[in-house]
Amino acid sequence: MRDPLLTENYNKLIEKYKQIVILNSIDAIIRWDMETKMPPGAFGLRSQQLALLSKIEHSMSIDPEIGVLLERLEKHPDCQNLTEVEKRNISLIRKFYDEQTRLPEKLVSEIARQQAIAYESWKKAKLTKDFAIFKPDLEKMFELKMQSAEILMEPKGVKTPYDAMIDFFEPKLTQEIITKVFEELKSGLVPIIERYAAHSEKIDFSVLKRRVPVKVQEEVSKSLAKFIGYDIESRNARGRIDETEHPFTVGYYDDVRITTHYHEDNFISSLYSILHEGGHALYEQNLKREWMYLPVGAGCSYGFHESQARFVENIVGRSHEFWEYYLPELKRITGDTFADVGVEQMVSAVNVVRPSKIRIEADEVTYALHIIIRFELERDLFAGKLKVGELPALWNQKYEDYLGVKVENDSEGILQDVHWSHGYFGYFPSYALGNIYSGQILQRMEKELAKWQEYISKGSFKEVREWLVNNVHSYGNLYDPLILLKKISGEEITSKPFLKYLQSKYSKIYG
Amino acid sequence: MRDPLLTENYNKLIEKYKQIVILNSIDAIIRWDMETKMPPGAFGLRSQQLALLSKIEHSMSIDPEIGVLLERLEKHPDCQNLTEVEKRNISLIRKFYDEQTRLPEKLVSEIARQQAIAYESWKKAKLTKDFAIFKPDLEKMFELKMQSAEILMEPKGVKTPYDAMIDFFEPKLTQEIITKVFEELKSGLVPIIERYAAHSEKIDFSVLKRRVPVKVQEEVSKSLAKFIGYDIESRNARGRIDETEHPFTVGYYDDVRITTHYHEDNFISSLYSILHEGGHALYEQNLKREWMYLPVGAGCSYGFHESQARFVENIVGRSHEFWEYYLPELKRITGDTFADVGVEQMVSAVNVVRPSKIRIEADEVTYALHIIIRFELERDLFAGKLKVGELPALWNQKYEDYLGVKVENDSEGILQDVHWSHGYFGYFPSYALGNIYSGQILQRMEKELAKWQEYISKGSFKEVREWLVNNVHSYGNLYDPLILLKKISGEEITSKPFLKYLQSKYSKIYG
Repeated sequence: MRDPLLTENYNKLIEKYKQIVILNSIDAIIRWDMETKMPPGAFGLRSQQLALLSKIEHSMSIDPEIGVLLERLEKHPDCQNLTEVEKRNISLIRKFYDEQTRLPEKLVSEIARQQAIAYESWKKAKLTKDFAIFKPDLEKMFELKMQSAEILMEPKGVKTPYDAMIDFFEPKLTQEIITKVFEELKSGLVPIIERYAAHSEKIDFSVLKRRVPVKVQEEVSKSLAKFIGYDIESRNARGRIDETEHPFTVGYYDDVRITTHYHEDNFISSLYSILHEGGHALYEQNLKREWMYLPVGAGCSYGFHESQARFVENIVGRSHEFWEYYLPELKRITGDTFADVGVEQMVSAVNVVRPSKIRIEADEVTYALHIIIRFELERDLFAGKLKVGELPALWNQKYEDYLGVKVENDSEGILQDVHWSHGYFGYFPSYALGNIYSGQILQRMEKELAKWQEYISKGSFKEVREWLVNNVHSYGNLYDPLILLKKISGEEITSKPFLKYLQSKYSKIYG
Repeated sequence: MRDPLLTENYNKLIEKYKQIVILNSIDAIIRWDMETKMPPGAFGLRSQQLALLSKIEHSMSIDPEIGVLLERLEKHPDCQNLTEVEKRNISLIRKFYDEQTRLPEKLVSEIARQQAIAYESWKKAKLTKDFAIFKPDLEKMFELKMQSAEILMEPKGVKTPYDAMIDFFEPKLTQEIITKVFEELKSGLVPIIERYAAHSEKIDFSVLKRRVPVKVQEEVSKSLAKFIGYDIESRNARGRIDETEHPFTVGYYDDVRITTHYHEDNFISSLYSILHEGGHALYEQNLKREWMYLPVGAGCSYGFHESQARFVENIVGRSHEFWEYYLPELKRITGDTFADVGVEQMVSAVNVVRPSKIRIEADEVTYALHIIIRFELERDLFAGKLKVGELPALWNQKYEDYLGVKVENDSEGILQDVHWSHGYFGYFPSYALGNIYSGQILQRMEKELAKWQEYISKGSFKEVREWLVNNVHSYGNLYDPLILLKKISGEEITSKPFLKYLQSKYSKIYG
């Protein structure tokens, strides 16, 4: 029998962490409310509420008692008798605690202040299409994040400052690994784009512009939620759908809410938002019940979360089989709006390949190139190979080189994303890693669930969902992403399956 | 110039209190969400969230630093140089701090545990109409509250344990004062009831049962919100309306939300809920801006809050003048549902006097008797004059004596209200005090705003609202209720104006 003291200290540590998890779930509801229900006049009060929650969370996270408990557990002679899950929980709390405590308070508050300042100047710069307004604040933000990256290199055991940034979002991924897999991805995507972008010009998109009233789109949302098994209606429902400017998913286990945006002249936007956010939501809802409130009871990484969203949105939702099932459904819900439309027409319309300047409007194929551009710039910035002032020109050059599009001004170029104003460096790669992971996950699923497309075409997502639950969701955060990826796919990280999936889909659509 | 240290300590104290206020406003949103938007499956997680918030609030409230700052301020030789508002803030924080810290932690947690237990057994007892199931848990609850009352008598400077309970809701009111004013009220109400209850039997209520679809009732709600100046639509709106099982108001200054319940066959229920909750909301929203986050930036007492709700619901909303204005509005919104209805018909239907068994269904006249019964029982219980086991029989006896109704079983008698299961003794009197205050406030307003009924009949509530803001709302919690009442009315507390208002209204309606 192991030392009861070991168990006692472990339980104490877990209880402390549980409080932080619950506090975060409160914060999530408050943020959701702000975007969906809050009366507009409440903005000032809400800022105070969020600041207080963040202050309380910070003080709970740096509680020295956590450090003491961690040390006791890590140095305990019996610590090898802990279960795999217990060990993982301890190591995740260690990682979190180091991230929270290693940075000097002064630096933390300087970053917080700079976030507010940089966000304001970014907004102004974007409005006036003038990077010069944002430049000094971005420089300052970059300097502060560089400082924190340098401090965190040692506790995180990474080789470069940028690796320390990436590690927040994709633990143990490095710029070296990402560079390799993104190069592979880029060289695979370019010919696909070259080949199918021309085809896309011939496609008739007008079907996607037919007017669908918001009330009807709400019915579409409900039917999609039902299809994927995201329960918003039963007496045990753990989800709900609301409308926001930008769609998002927020929540934890039994309270996971998604949002969408209805455009009456672009119904497909909400349709795919529901599937995308629904994919995120299923991941959160299907984490192992007994891991609730534990560090392992969480998604594996930002990239893995994105992989689940894209799996539902793209791999399932843009498939021929999905539209075989869903087009009649859509016709039923929308009356005679789409009476004349056929499955092929819909499938080609939603699978267009069209290089563009704006990331969030990009299609499935070109999307990753937007990410690769951002990754390369961040990586070289942190390596000291380029300066903040050089970003706009380099950005525009890469858009021309990789996507063949000409950026006309900073607003549609370097200023389009909010991330850097918040200091979120190292975040972008996760989006494209999500594509890569989803390809590897699909490759494995096709071996084990050969008839998955048949199920989808019959309107049953259940088999796919159960496979994802058993092979992805239920692992929670038990492993770092590359290890989980290997458990699932049997392989190291590689872009090949994602590229193969695209090739196969597009060759079927365009012959 | 006063000692800068005095100001410094004062500011420190205020800052600590501000954090508690903000935390409470977070708690309010989380509770609102639970009643309105939360997916039902989230109940367990939500309980954890509420428990954590309450734990954090408790630890912020008993922060010894607050005690130190209070002592420093109270004993400072310059403390007489503090402004009236500063002094009041200090004394309100002192009251709050004593309430939070004087009770032993063990007693506090025993009460919390007993609340959960007693609530469960109350639910069971109510379902099975059997007080015996609830009795032991109510006895235990009463014992615990008696213990806490005895401890709090000294810091609160009151003469009886029940006074200590009352003081939480109506500071400085006592059982002696309340007994006197309730006796006066009772002897005034009985003849009014005797006289008009018979009349009421001849009234045709069927007009109130005409079917109004929920969608249409939502429009009614909007029009009422607009009438009273409760903004739910503009870009600076600080309120919103949602549906819940039981209507309530929740929020703070710039985020004050009300709820209602729509019954398709009883539209008047929601109409008066909106006016009642709207009255609460206006009070919160119109507190002095510069007092936000301060102890004085709050309603004066539960009774004062209730007075504002009843002022809008009853004094305005059940007046002839209101229906002169609103009946055409109602007809416009509801199509031809009320085409044949006249103002007199509506006014008599909404001003029925009908003794009944259930408090929350009681009319304006008989309502206070329900409260007086509860007050007398609580008072005598805390005075040791009766035992928990004697409550049901006494309850039934009083209902027969005061209201002339025969209680058939415990569910419609002693078990009808949830309050005692939560240990909320001393809360009930506030409801009827609200009536009494509203009468005294009205008497004063009639002197200063002689034409108020004319404004209402023309659809303008603005004059009344501004008078209430200037004479009630804007005083916030600067004075204890009896002092504020005297400032407003020039008189000590008395039921006469409320009785006079009822007499005058009913004699007009029934001749």
